[in-house]
Amino acid sequence: MSQNLKGFRDFLPEKAIARNFLIEKLKAYFERFGFDPLETPALEYAQILLGKYGDEADKLIYLFEDKGKRKVGLRYDQTVPLARVIAQYPQLVKPFKRYQIQPVWRAENPQSGRFREFIQADIDIVGSNNLLVEAEIIACALGVFKKLGFKKIKMLINDRQNFVNLDKRVIIAVDKLEKIGEEKVIAEIERIGYEKKQAYKILDQIKNKKPTANLNQLFTLLRKYGLKDKVDFVYQPTLARGLDYYTGIIFEAVDPNYPAQSLGGGGRYDNLIGVFSGQKVPACGFAFGFDRILAAMESLSLLPKTLTKTQVLVTVFSDEFLSQSIQTANFLRQNDINAEIYVDLPKKLDKQLKYADKKGLTYAIIIGPYEIKNNVITLKELKTGKQETMATKNLIEKLKQ
Amino acid sequence: MSQNLKGFRDFLPEKAIARNFLIEKLKAYFERFGFDPLETPALEYAQILLGKYGDEADKLIYLFEDKGKRKVGLRYDQTVPLARVIAQYPQLVKPFKRYQIQPVWRAENPQSGRFREFIQADIDIVGSNNLLVEAEIIACALGVFKKLGFKKIKMLINDRQNFVNLDKRVIIAVDKLEKIGEEKVIAEIERIGYEKKQAYKILDQIKNKKPTANLNQLFTLLRKYGLKDKVDFVYQPTLARGLDYYTGIIFEAVDPNYPAQSLGGGGRYDNLIGVFSGQKVPACGFAFGFDRILAAMESLSLLPKTLTKTQVLVTVFSDEFLSQSIQTANFLRQNDINAEIYVDLPKKLDKQLKYADKKGLTYAIIIGPYEIKNNVITLKELKTGKQETMATKNLIEKLKQ
Repeated sequence: MSQNLKGFRDFLPEKAIARNFLIEKLKAYFERFGFDPLETPALEYAQILLGKYGDEADKLIYLFEDKGKRKVGLRYDQTVPLARVIAQYPQLVKPFKRYQIQPVWRAENPQSGRFREFIQADIDIVGSNNLLVEAEIIACALGVFKKLGFKKIKMLINDRQNFVNLDKRVIIAVDKLEKIGEEKVIAEIERIGYEKKQAYKILDQIKNKKPTANLNQLFTLLRKYGLKDKVDFVYQPTLARGLDYYTGIIFEAVDPNYPAQSLGGGGRYDNLIGVFSGQKVPACGFAFGFDRILAAMESLSLLPKTLTKTQVLVTVFSDEFLSQSIQTANFLRQNDINAEIYVDLPKKLDKQLKYADKKGLTYAIIIGPYEIKNNVITLKELKTGKQETMATKNLIEKLKQ
Repeated sequence: MSQNLKGFRDFLPEKAIARNFLIEKLKAYFERFGFDPLETPALEYAQILLGKYGDEADKLIYLFEDKGKRKVGLRYDQTVPLARVIAQYPQLVKPFKRYQIQPVWRAENPQSGRFREFIQADIDIVGSNNLLVEAEIIACALGVFKKLGFKKIKMLINDRQNFVNLDKRVIIAVDKLEKIGEEKVIAEIERIGYEKKQAYKILDQIKNKKPTANLNQLFTLLRKYGLKDKVDFVYQPTLARGLDYYTGIIFEAVDPNYPAQSLGGGGRYDNLIGVFSGQKVPACGFAFGFDRILAAMESLSLLPKTLTKTQVLVTVFSDEFLSQSIQTANFLRQNDINAEIYVDLPKKLDKQLKYADKKGLTYAIIIGPYEIKNNVITLKELKTGKQETMATKNLIEKLKQ
């Protein structure tokens, strides 16, 4: 038995490198906007987690009893732990801006293509109800998508206030308009119990809702950021978003080049953070769909194609010349070149070159009798087979190209 | 109830920043030596984990039944998952060099100062029994410690072959020589059942053991890396290391400036990786004591003192001048300066400055009527209170100093 659990994934180097690439980009951009990192434990008391996400979600929380008979659960998202942190450390300066990029666990059915372990990447601002908070969150989210190469990224924006007094089931149906089309939405509203005519009227009313005062004020702010109406952000009165906890402005990032799914979403949720302290604590945030973004980047060729972070393999011709190979690897490393020395000696040179090629390295360095005699090294480009002989000291310039 | 579990830690920004700093340094250095990242799931089948670490360790594994009645366990270390990966993906090119930096979980008693969740940072080379493997691992480990600022770091080295046919309890006692001193080691050997004279003789024999042929060969290799005997590496015949699975060369990093504990250790373990495939797969690795290294760096002042990654707060004088503040923040961010704009408006300027100071930012920017009129901004250094007025375009040069 040597198998990982269903719904869980191993990330072998190629995938792990792509994930690290995205994580580093996200972190750097979040920090550019003044967000600082926060980390919370994988395990929380079960009672911290339960009852915060709705009954359906509660069933998906990994719960168990630890050896001290405490009921504990694995992190289900990063918002409830944030709420716990805000209550536990009142000394935190507000507004508190944090990002958090950690795995979460959900006992989903993996047959549905969902994972039981996946990364969430969130930014949140806690402690202010000024609309500048929404503007900052949206500007940061749009900015990071553009930085990643999503040139056509758009933020769909709405206000939950648009749905006040509306049947919740109707809202859920209308939210699907972009995905399933008008006919199916009407059918769904009919199924709830409305007549066709009435269903059309409801949908029409929602589609023609004028933006709320808050929305207009937000749009004015976004323009101050240089963001453009219809291009960067779009008022979408049918946007509802699933999570129960939103209380005001909501938004969702979509890319017309990758229409499959939204790449992230967020909004204002003024009732959740205070749940542990009993105080009302305003908050607004955005959750980046890490796996979806990675998949979209792969399909849009936005990821660097790297099988390995190692650039060059220093081969070892024979025991006699091992010192020179070690010294060359040392020299490369000291000059910030990621270099590997072939360790599984003795092996013939062609086997070592095949190894470098299979691993996806760009270059191999050969130091044999000819090279030693002439005080040079041979640099072989593995894809083309092209070889070049040069002094070791000229290697750095060549490899940094 | 708003408390984290005992033995688990929240990392608020200051701590999370320090952890990220160390993780990034480790990653970069591991990649410099040709190690690629690997990630494995937090949960594994219980039977993957059980029986690999010894009976005592088995008791510390977080085990539970998931909703599908599968017996599962939380990652206990990164070596057994590596062994599982090697068996599950035979296509991985060997020698396989990977680093892994993920949390592990142990149901330790937190009263003893141990944590139940902590990061492990490991490098391993799988698939070769050449001593160049040990040399690479040791050179990489010493190099990363030096890079982190541990100027006096030393690698203590021994060979498990030195202990062949010795009573295991005696080995455990002798291993403590550096920590508890000769007298206590002798007492411990006596307690096992040896007479005092005999105990001294045993200890003496171990202390005077000549290095094995493997050790001598390794030392020759390490010298080729420019590493110096007694300075960078030290033959220590009493070094045994706790883990049962080592089979050959073993080593431990210590810093005389921080003698409390070893900062990491490793060695060759040729019997563990093959446990899932039934084949013998040679391997050698090093585990960095992440928390210990962080604590040592803190005590040796090797960590940058940062409360926040944000460099500057752009204040908002009034609604009237909000556009200018947003534009200034935009400009800073586009020029790679981490900038926050004060969002919790309206607030008086002194409150905004106090906020920036409390958060540990270096600078605040003020854009009021005077600045607007003269087309400048005022840059305030928060620690000194020193103010300087300049054109916005000159900000970048100033802030990048």
